[in-house]
This record gives sequence, structure tokens and C-alpha cells, in this order.
Amino acid sequence: MKTGFLGLCGQKVDAIEHHEAEIKKLSKEIAEERERVKKDPKAIMPAAFVSFKSRWGAAVCAQTQQSRDPTSWLTEWAPEPCDVYWLNLPIPYVSLAIRRLIMAVAFFFLTFFFMIPIASVQALASIEGLEKVAPFLKPIIDMKFIKSVIQGILPGLALKLFLIFLPTILMIMAKFEGFTSKSSLERRAATRYYLFNLVNVFLGSIVAGSALEQLNAYIKQSANEIPRTIGVAVPLRATFFITYIMVDGWAGIAGEILMLKPLIIYHLKNFFLVKTEKDREEAMDPGSLGFNTGEPQIQLYFLLGLVYAAVTPALLPFIVIFFGLAYVVFRHQIINVYNQEYESAAAFWPDVHGRIIIALLISQVALIGLLTSKKAAQSTPFLIALVVLTIWFYTFCKGRYEPAFVRYPLQEAMMKDTLERAREPNLNLKPYLQNAYIHPVFKEEDEVDEFDFNSENESVLVPTKRQSRRSTPAPSRISGASSPSLPPEVVPEHPERAS
Amino acid sequence: MKTGFLGLCGQKVDAIEHHEAEIKKLSKEIAEERERVKKDPKAIMPAAFVSFKSRWGAAVCAQTQQSRDPTSWLTEWAPEPCDVYWLNLPIPYVSLAIRRLIMAVAFFFLTFFFMIPIASVQALASIEGLEKVAPFLKPIIDMKFIKSVIQGILPGLALKLFLIFLPTILMIMAKFEGFTSKSSLERRAATRYYLFNLVNVFLGSIVAGSALEQLNAYIKQSANEIPRTIGVAVPLRATFFITYIMVDGWAGIAGEILMLKPLIIYHLKNFFLVKTEKDREEAMDPGSLGFNTGEPQIQLYFLLGLVYAAVTPALLPFIVIFFGLAYVVFRHQIINVYNQEYESAAAFWPDVHGRIIIALLISQVALIGLLTSKKAAQSTPFLIALVVLTIWFYTFCKGRYEPAFVRYPLQEAMMKDTLERAREPNLNLKPYLQNAYIHPVFKEEDEVDEFDFNSENESVLVPTKRQSRRSTPAPSRISGASSPSLPPEVVPEHPERAS
Repeated sequence: MKTGFLGLCGQKVDAIEHHEAEIKKLSKEIAEERERVKKDPKAIMPAAFVSFKSRWGAAVCAQTQQSRDPTSWLTEWAPEPCDVYWLNLPIPYVSLAIRRLIMAVAFFFLTFFFMIPIASVQALASIEGLEKVAPFLKPIIDMKFIKSVIQGILPGLALKLFLIFLPTILMIMAKFEGFTSKSSLERRAATRYYLFNLVNVFLGSIVAGSALEQLNAYIKQSANEIPRTIGVAVPLRATFFITYIMVDGWAGIAGEILMLKPLIIYHLKNFFLVKTEKDREEAMDPGSLGFNTGEPQIQLYFLLGLVYAAVTPALLPFIVIFFGLAYVVFRHQIINVYNQEYESAAAFWPDVHGRIIIALLISQVALIGLLTSKKAAQSTPFLIALVVLTIWFYTFCKGRYEPAFVRYPLQEAMMKDTLERAREPNLNLKPYLQNAYIHPVFKEEDEVDEFDFNSENESVLVPTKRQSRRSTPAPSRISGASSPSLPPEVVPEHPERAS
Repeated sequence: MKTGFLGLCGQKVDAIEHHEAEIKKLSKEIAEERERVKKDPKAIMPAAFVSFKSRWGAAVCAQTQQSRDPTSWLTEWAPEPCDVYWLNLPIPYVSLAIRRLIMAVAFFFLTFFFMIPIASVQALASIEGLEKVAPFLKPIIDMKFIKSVIQGILPGLALKLFLIFLPTILMIMAKFEGFTSKSSLERRAATRYYLFNLVNVFLGSIVAGSALEQLNAYIKQSANEIPRTIGVAVPLRATFFITYIMVDGWAGIAGEILMLKPLIIYHLKNFFLVKTEKDREEAMDPGSLGFNTGEPQIQLYFLLGLVYAAVTPALLPFIVIFFGLAYVVFRHQIINVYNQEYESAAAFWPDVHGRIIIALLISQVALIGLLTSKKAAQSTPFLIALVVLTIWFYTFCKGRYEPAFVRYPLQEAMMKDTLERAREPNLNLKPYLQNAYIHPVFKEEDEVDEFDFNSENESVLVPTKRQSRRSTPAPSRISGASSPSLPPEVVPEHPERAS
């Protein structure tokens, strides 16, 4: 083998010896860099993971305010080790507030004005536009086949590409906002994606036209005309939504079970890159379930079902078939296919519940509008009472059930502590805890493998067809040692003090 | 003296002996009733005051969730002993949620439909109405003097009476909602009174007509016409508001310093009821400052100042004079006149801050509307950015500063605990704490007097002209013993579990 550019030139050496020397050199450099970062005062993050001796201590620390300045020494429950998004840990409080403002404004413009750049790209992508910008392409464009391709596909392509990249854009926006765990990033991206779909797919189909035109129309309409506009348009668009459910919903589910994209990528990788068994296993990794796109889409169908349940029940069978298929397919995918990156203890549910309430409210408003236009306006007071009661139900549920998702009652913590102390008085979690929350670059590769080995032996509760358990979350790894529960760690952040 | 009805009939006995015997009998009955209530299992309240040995323990308990069911074992900071509203302590969680819903709906109707019953009363109070309902009054009504009185005063009287009783109505509504301290009752009543004034005085004067007509007008207008309607009407109503400030504001301040109502009541009481020195002192008690009416009115003037600052600056001197007078008068009243019932540690400020933000937003919206109608619509985007930034500023302040009002940082608690232990290692608060949170009926009269005596000697920091310190709050009573701070007690409530 030659040492030069792409192995084509330079000195000739033995390949194995050369690579071994390279690995040694790189390992040494990595170790040196690690030592340097550990000692460098500039590399100290204004955030830390703290482990507690008891669950009670962790629960107290996570739920109370530590310092007089509420922007410093903030504590919150630490996410799972696999769930930590390391890049966002050191963002100070004031910066977070500003980032959230910027992203809220950006999302507003993204939702209502995304058609402007796309329309200009479409104008550019038309034949006249292309000939104008790049006259040298004219002979190619004038060929009949290419001309029809450009006319048929290009204009739609810009919109389609935007919609494909939208979840990624929303994910980047969420990352910019500074959430510290992957699960909260996905939750935020999912909320935004749902709102985008609600405005641009649901309302955009009902009141034809782009979101910008709609915004204009709604601002110019009076408050009691908006429900009527929606109510009148809803039954008219039923056939469109039936088609939409079949084309987007059913086909989407079929695509989900086909896993076409991972299949193609696997075969490409297998052909070009795979050299060892480990490479092959990595290439076969199907990734994790995309909550940030799948969940909002399912919620959109739920919204359609609620809105049309009273207006056009003929749409309901299509929704039911969709949900039946989705249940079977996603159940199979989650159990047998995906390697979920993290577990977030049902942290998604409050969001889902909130969106169901939004869907209920929209269906009630549409019903009010429809009944008003059908000369049944005397039913409106009852429906308004229904809206008020729905909102009240939401606030009640928030007070009654949300604490179960965000707080950890002291009674529970104490009970588990006492139980554990009685059962295993000599339990020492320290060695495990020492390595639990370490930045991935500091993790020794062999340690991870060792944990994998343990988990394979101890904690396979549901037999699955998974080949690799690389990204199984931590609790199952230590399930032999401690009862599964929220890990007793919190993240105290102490960013720079605000003025 | 005779023992019968009103001392007019019955057996003749010696007055002093008889009354002493009566007092003895009643005291015995009171003691028996107290014993009975203490032992009666039905009299146990599902709420308790808990005292902690350290501030740290209290802070932890108040800020954490105790039980898995978030509706039972709720903990919160106990209000001052004088601030407790005893009747509302035992209301369970679900009932609270329902009460709040009912009151929200009731307040909506009160704000927008209060003119309906008043208009019907006014119709009744007119001469024709009176003659119809009570024909036997006809000879009296036909007298010229009485006729002019009825025509001139009666119709306005109904509205005036309603407005006088409005704060009381709002206070009763707040009590029904189940707040557990007098300060939170007043806060809620103040919020409602402000909203009522905002809708019926400010908007009601700008868009002439009752609130109901306004509601109708706003619903029928489109969203971008509402700012214009307000913006155009605002400068036209400037002279009206100048008159309003002089008549209601300046005269109100003058009335505040005159204290006409307490003066009359005192002289009436002095004439008819006062028999001993203690009676006279009680009759002279001017009560406490009515936060629930005074604060919203001052905020209304603040709103007027903000709205007119850019539109009609000629109104500003009147506002400035009002605030100058109000400062001087209220400062004097608070220091020298009123016996404040409770201290709430500035718990009012977050509400005040929120209302200032509302006033800012209204002034900005009015400005947008005005500039749009004056053909300066190109400034609108900047003003909309201003609105967004104002809302963001509010959320930022809420996150940054509100915790200081509702939570008690552990660091502070620990510092004070350590300091206290070092300074007074043998401090025993138990005897004080045992009697601090006792229902008023269980309090021995002489004990209270004793405390009064102590406070007179020990804690008069600001020399005032007050005669009676009966209702001075507790911390000053023990200020000789412990540094003033939030009392280390919390109220755990454990109402019946919700389903």
C-alpha cells in the first residue's frame, strides 16, 4: 500500500502495519486531547450532573429553587444518559429566552410565508425562467423529453423538497432553542410540525389558498364570521380529505412497513462501504422511530376524524382503517425493528392530550359555524357552553394529572428508598454512576461493549428480533441492580447571572 | 333592672350581679362548646398548619409534591396568621376547580350583561313604572318636589348603587372560589375589578354604548378594524377623560383623606353605642386599606396615562397631579391611619406588573390603529414588533422574577437557619407556634391582649399616631425573638381524593 493521496502515490508500506501504527498514533492523540480538555479551565461547562444517595434527595433538589437568583443554580430532572443533547447544556438563561423569542417569530414566518421563496424558486424552475438564467442550457431544454420533465416535475419538486426537509428544519430550530434532551427536542419539533400541518394542510385545504392569503382573509373577517366560513367549507371538502387519507395516510403506513429508504441505504452501504461484520450490523441499523414526524401526522388524522364525525360520518371508516393499520404496523415496527434512542417516561403524552383538546375545540367551532349557516342558530349557546367546558376540562386535567409527568412525589421516593435499603443494604451504585453521565467522547469503547454484554444476558424481558442493542437505554442495563425508576440525578445549571 | 324583653318587663334584679352571672354562664357554655368541637370527629378539617424546626424543612415541604395523587396532600406556604381566611380551608380540589369555572362564567356575564337588570330596575324606577306597580303611591308621586327627585335621581341611583356594591360582589365571588388567605381574596377581587373597569369605563367610554353593545360591535368587526376603531376614538375622548380624572380621580383622593364614611360611622357609633373606653377605641378603628378597590382604580389612571402619552399629551399633567396627590395621601393614610389586617410580602406586585403590561399593549394597539387611519400604515410592522417584544418581556420577567414572590430558595433558608442556630442555640419557638395558628374562636382573649402589650413595647420601629395596634400582623409581635422572615409553616391540604 502506498501512503500518499488515496493510496495512489508515495512510499510503499505494509498495509496492516501501517494502519496499526496509525491507530496507535491516533489513540495517543485522543488520550492527550482528553487529558488537555479535562485540565483546561475553559472547557468547564456551566452545567453538571449530580448523583444523589437517595431518591428523596434527588426529588427535593429537582423540585426546589436553590438560589435567590432564579436564573442561576437551576435544577431539573436529568434525562436518560442516551437522551442528553450535550451541545445545549451550557446555554445561559437570558440567551435561552432570546433564542425562544427568535424561534417563535421565525416559526410564524415559516408557517405563513413559506410559499414566497418557494414560488420564486418555482418561477425560476419554469422553462422560461431557466432559459433566461442559463441561456447555454437552451439546446438541452428544447429537447422534447426533458422539456416535458421540467414542465411536469420541477415546479412541484420545490414544494415537495421543502416539505421533505421541513422536519429537519424544525429540528434545527428546536436545537437552536436550547433544549437539553433529545426527547424534548423531538417534542418541540413535533408541536411545530403539528401547527404547520394544522394551518397549511387542514385550514389550507378548507379555505383554499396559501396560508398567507388565509391569514389575510381571517384578519379581514369578523370574529363571528370565521366559524361560519369554516363550518360551511368543512362538508364541501370531505371528498378531498377522503382522498388525502388514502393517498397520504394509507400509503404512508404502507411505506412505513416497507422501510424503503433504509432498505436502499442498507444495500448501497453494503455494496460500497461494508468491510467487516460490525460494519454490516451498523449499516442494518434502522434508526429510531421519528416521533417528530409520525406523531403530528397521526394527530392530524385524529383531528379530521373529530371534525367530520358529526358533519360527514362517511369519512370515519377511512380514518378507522388508517388507525387500525397504523396500530398494527407501528406496534410491529417498535417491537421488532427500531432501536429507540431514548425512553422519556411518557413525556409525550401531555402534548398529545393538548392536541386532542385543540382538535375537539376546532371541531366544535366548525359545528357552531355549520349550524349557524343551517338556520339552527339557537343551538349556538349550548355549543359555546361545550367550548367553555372543554377548555375547563383541559385546565382541570393539567392541574390534576400533569404533575405526574413533571414531578416526582416525595412519598414514592421515600418508599422506594426504604424498600431498597431493606432489600440490599450494601448496594453500591457509585461505580455505575461514575460512568453513567459521561460525554460520549470520553467513553471508552470497551466499557460500552461490556455493558451491552450484560444487558443481553440480564434484561431481555420481551424477546425481540433485534440484532443489535447498541442504543437500548440505560435503565434496562442496570435493571438487575435497581428497580426501574427515574434515575436519581438532576442537572443543576448555573449559567452566567443575568443583570 | 328587669330580666325580660329589652329590660322592660320581668323580675327585677341587680344589674351588675345579673350580668356577671350571665357572663359566667356564657363563658362556661363557650368552654363546653370548645371541648365538644375539639373532640368531635366531624369537626376535623381536611387541612392543617404544620410548623417545622428549620426554614429549610418548610421550604422543601412547600415546594415539593408529597403524594402520588396531586390532589391530596397539597402543600403551600401558610399565609400570616391574621391573613388566614378560615372558612375556605377545607374545600377539596375538585370542588375548587368547579367553583373557579362557575365564577369565571359568572364574571363574564357580570361584565357584559350587568346593564340588563339595571335597565329593568331603571324602567321600574321611572314615574310611569312606579305608578303602574304601586298605584296607591300616586298622590305622593304627583307632588312636584318628589316628582322632580324621582325623575332626577332614581334612574341614576340604581346604577350608582350597583357600582358601590360591585367590590363587595366581587369579594363574595372570590370567597366562593375558595382562596385561603385574605390577601389572595383581595388580589382576585382586584383583578376582576380592574377588568370590569377596563371594559366598562375605558372601552365603554371610547366606543360609546354598554359593554354588551360593544361586544356585539367587536364580534362583528374584523380583527384589523378593531385597532382602527379604538385608535380613531381615543383622541376624540381626551376631554372626557380629563373631566373623568378630575371628577373621579382628584375628588376620590380628596374623599380618601377626608375619610367621610368612617367619620360619620364613628360619630353615629359614639352617640348610640359607645359605653366604655374600649368601645370608643373600637369605633375609631378606620379599618384597613381597601386594596381591592384602590389598586385597580390607580391602575386605570396608569392605563389612561400610557394610552394618551403619545396621542394627547395634554392629558398627562392631570394624571401627574393625580399620582402626586395619591402618593402624598396614601402614604399618610398607610403610615398614620389604617390598621392593615395582614402583610403579604409584596404578593400584589406580580399582578400590578401584569396590568402595566396590559396597559402597554392596549396603548400600542391604539397607536397602531391611529397611525393606520392617519395614512402612516408603513409604521405598523415596527409597532407589531413592539407588541411582540412587550409580550416577550412579560414572559421573561415572569420566569426571571416571579419565583422570588412564590418560592423560597433553599440557600436563603439554610443561611438563616445556620445563622439563627449560631446566634441563639437555645431558641424555643414552640410556645409561640402552639398558639400562632389557632382559629380565632379558640383564642383566649387575655392572651391576645398580652401579645399586644409586648408588641407595644418591643417592636414600634416607625413611630406612628395609631392608637390601637389590635390588628398589627404577627411577625412584628415576635420580632424580638426571631429575625423577620416568612413564617416556617405550610398548609398541607388533603381533601377527598378525586376519582
